[in-house]
Amino acid sequence: MYKSEQLAKQIRHLIENGTLKAHEKLPSLREQVQISGFSLITVMNAYQELESRGLIYAREKSGYYVSNTIVDVELARPLIVSLNSKVEINSLVFQYLKSIQGEHIVPLGSAFPSQDLVFSKKLTQIMGQIARNKKSYDAIDNLPPGNLFLRKLIAQRYCMQGIPTDADDIVITSGCMDALNLSLQAIACPGDYIVLQQNIFYGALQAAERLGLKVVTIPEHPQHGFDLEAFEHILKTYPVKVCWLMLNAHNPIGFTVNEEIKLKIAELLHQYQVHLIEDDVYEEMYFGQQKPLPMKYYDQNNLVLHCSSFSKTLGAAFRVGWVYAGKYSQHIQHLQLMSTISVNALLQNALVDFISNYHYEKHLRILRKSLQQNKLQFYRYIESHLPKGCKLHYYPGGYFLWLKLPESVSSMQVYEQLIQQNIGISPGQLFNVSEQKSQCLRLNCSFEWNEQFQQAVDTLLHSIGTFEAT
Amino acid sequence: MYKSEQLAKQIRHLIENGTLKAHEKLPSLREQVQISGFSLITVMNAYQELESRGLIYAREKSGYYVSNTIVDVELARPLIVSLNSKVEINSLVFQYLKSIQGEHIVPLGSAFPSQDLVFSKKLTQIMGQIARNKKSYDAIDNLPPGNLFLRKLIAQRYCMQGIPTDADDIVITSGCMDALNLSLQAIACPGDYIVLQQNIFYGALQAAERLGLKVVTIPEHPQHGFDLEAFEHILKTYPVKVCWLMLNAHNPIGFTVNEEIKLKIAELLHQYQVHLIEDDVYEEMYFGQQKPLPMKYYDQNNLVLHCSSFSKTLGAAFRVGWVYAGKYSQHIQHLQLMSTISVNALLQNALVDFISNYHYEKHLRILRKSLQQNKLQFYRYIESHLPKGCKLHYYPGGYFLWLKLPESVSSMQVYEQLIQQNIGISPGQLFNVSEQKSQCLRLNCSFEWNEQFQQAVDTLLHSIGTFEAT
Repeated sequence: MYKSEQLAKQIRHLIENGTLKAHEKLPSLREQVQISGFSLITVMNAYQELESRGLIYAREKSGYYVSNTIVDVELARPLIVSLNSKVEINSLVFQYLKSIQGEHIVPLGSAFPSQDLVFSKKLTQIMGQIARNKKSYDAIDNLPPGNLFLRKLIAQRYCMQGIPTDADDIVITSGCMDALNLSLQAIACPGDYIVLQQNIFYGALQAAERLGLKVVTIPEHPQHGFDLEAFEHILKTYPVKVCWLMLNAHNPIGFTVNEEIKLKIAELLHQYQVHLIEDDVYEEMYFGQQKPLPMKYYDQNNLVLHCSSFSKTLGAAFRVGWVYAGKYSQHIQHLQLMSTISVNALLQNALVDFISNYHYEKHLRILRKSLQQNKLQFYRYIESHLPKGCKLHYYPGGYFLWLKLPESVSSMQVYEQLIQQNIGISPGQLFNVSEQKSQCLRLNCSFEWNEQFQQAVDTLLHSIGTFEAT
Repeated sequence: MYKSEQLAKQIRHLIENGTLKAHEKLPSLREQVQISGFSLITVMNAYQELESRGLIYAREKSGYYVSNTIVDVELARPLIVSLNSKVEINSLVFQYLKSIQGEHIVPLGSAFPSQDLVFSKKLTQIMGQIARNKKSYDAIDNLPPGNLFLRKLIAQRYCMQGIPTDADDIVITSGCMDALNLSLQAIACPGDYIVLQQNIFYGALQAAERLGLKVVTIPEHPQHGFDLEAFEHILKTYPVKVCWLMLNAHNPIGFTVNEEIKLKIAELLHQYQVHLIEDDVYEEMYFGQQKPLPMKYYDQNNLVLHCSSFSKTLGAAFRVGWVYAGKYSQHIQHLQLMSTISVNALLQNALVDFISNYHYEKHLRILRKSLQQNKLQFYRYIESHLPKGCKLHYYPGGYFLWLKLPESVSSMQVYEQLIQQNIGISPGQLFNVSEQKSQCLRLNCSFEWNEQFQQAVDTLLHSIGTFEAT
């Protein structure tokens, strides 16, 4: 046993037998050197070991404290994910995104909705008209926080959901990813704790990594999507600064968390004074009568920064999003002026025209209907041809199906085999850093069902069957 | 005297009397604790004090070393700028940019060229045409590294300057600021040393701050713009990782560095294996027959990342730039996928049409001619009405004039007084963190001379005269 492990074990014993109490400050590194007789390096390694196991936590410029739990995180549900494997995740995502780029690949793995559905002829007509008008290119009016009229229209849409909003609460960004990143930068500092869902859009992991945050992941609840108990446990245990969650038409799995749970999440955020960065980029892609409420609706304390975009509903090439920044507006604008500076003026002006003339609402109604039809068609076909041991998750919203493979089959293997045949799928590992091997994969079902897709799905299901048999 | 100062003084003495030699490793923190009998905190503070004075430098995971100089940086020309005042710089820039936003402000302080000059009717016609075409919005073809045809056209322009370039060397970005930021992130890590010019586009300082870099500034050479001697001194003294320089139509001062000096800079970069992020956003705004060569031309070792944009020549609202990334292309694309994801497809497609049909070259010829005329008109008027003690710097390129005020006048005071009268100017402090008070200001002279500008300039000159008299 290394010296540091020896020391870690000693301290752990003191925590477990109650000698060191929850939130009690540990001796400083120097003090511990004197107490234990070990070297500074050994003490540091021991503290890091205990921290990575969730038994102690660090407060900036203050030192180490005992966590509010003696449960070893290896056994408990919430896991601290060591982000040491970060570079591989990035290259994995990158290679993957590169591999499915290209017109010859069947886009079951794509993150983008079918261009046939999101393309709006009306919007392109408006673009065509205003593109000839010099006024449409004015830079000044479109500097951060962005075009005033567009912000007013976005604010109105929040108001219609019962969320009091002013144009000045909104900051226009270069897509939702930009909004999420800027929000996280405004809230969190290196070393802060962030809560992420165990399966999550890979951009969240990359953003946390880039900012040097400590990531605590929360597992999905098998029934409700969101595990309140685990969430509360995490907030009790760690000095969490911020969460980044997706609760409507969750990517990659697809669930939408119910209102009761959202209300309780809001209460917990308030109780622990934790900020939430809410990724709600699929908010318009609900199938029912009622648009699901965002967490922003339950936010009484300016703790929620709600991020969304037009890129999912009008085309990924658009790159116009926004954040409900509230009192963080100034800070986020600062950060914008240091990065993208502003969002293209013409696009902002075109959206003003498009939305204010009710074209957007009409577009969304048709889009939702078509998405539902297409997704159902994929679902029915796959469900009725499902190989033994598979489980297909269908949720009424978004355009993804989440397919759980039999225990013995790795989604990465299936991906590797299919990409050889020019079929793209999204292996679950892209969305989950804590699993070495994933049995899940995400299928994009926004496309109109046709022979090409049926063949691709047949190939996929056959491939799963082959792996299962071996 | 604090204990740490006492220790710092002792070590400094050892360096100055030659006991500790250049590049010799200092005792580790722990060793120094034992040697000196001081506490760890005292030793750390002493080392930091010596580091901030340039007497020692840190190497990651290795420790502290003696710098190659016994000259105290307080006396020598190159200065280490402590970036502790960083937040103020950001808010200053932010407040300033906000204050000159608005149509009622005379835009002498603007960073953007006159919209009358950069607006291209032809480009808007193209936009109008292709905006109606569904193909123009395709997301996949425009993901990082960006539209292939646009990258080919940009590569061709490099080739025409004698710089061998392949489409794959280029990455399209959301403007030049985005290109610069991505490049810096790809090259530098927190704690690395960066060389910046003493007067520089404020974005460079903000980017360095955001990444936690140690900034060494190099003063402008009164004759040549760039001080080679100081540059070599810095590279000798500090373990510099990267430089961020602007050498063509420098913002804010305006000079273009000659080819002889550029060649020597390249040699020094090679000798010390230091990367250069080259901000060349004004590259097209030369007034002579020959486009000034970028540092990329002299780069034999893939050390230069050349960044530029269409935003200065076609309108600030455009937000399309690029970086000659070479072997850093993959890394920069990774970073893009974590931030803006991609650049609007329509804009990329419109630029392909515009450039490939030679409209861009024609547009640039007219733009350059008009800029030269306008700038000359401003120059002649101001020069012939210059208050006593002022010095006006005119350089044949770009659209800024750099005005040095008399010793007793602060540019911030002038700015404060003028903004009350709805006239915007750029006080020198925005571009120079090391000066507490700046006597310089930047004037945007891209506009067609008219009565409004004459009145604004008269008010400015009168205001300077008033301050001078008091």
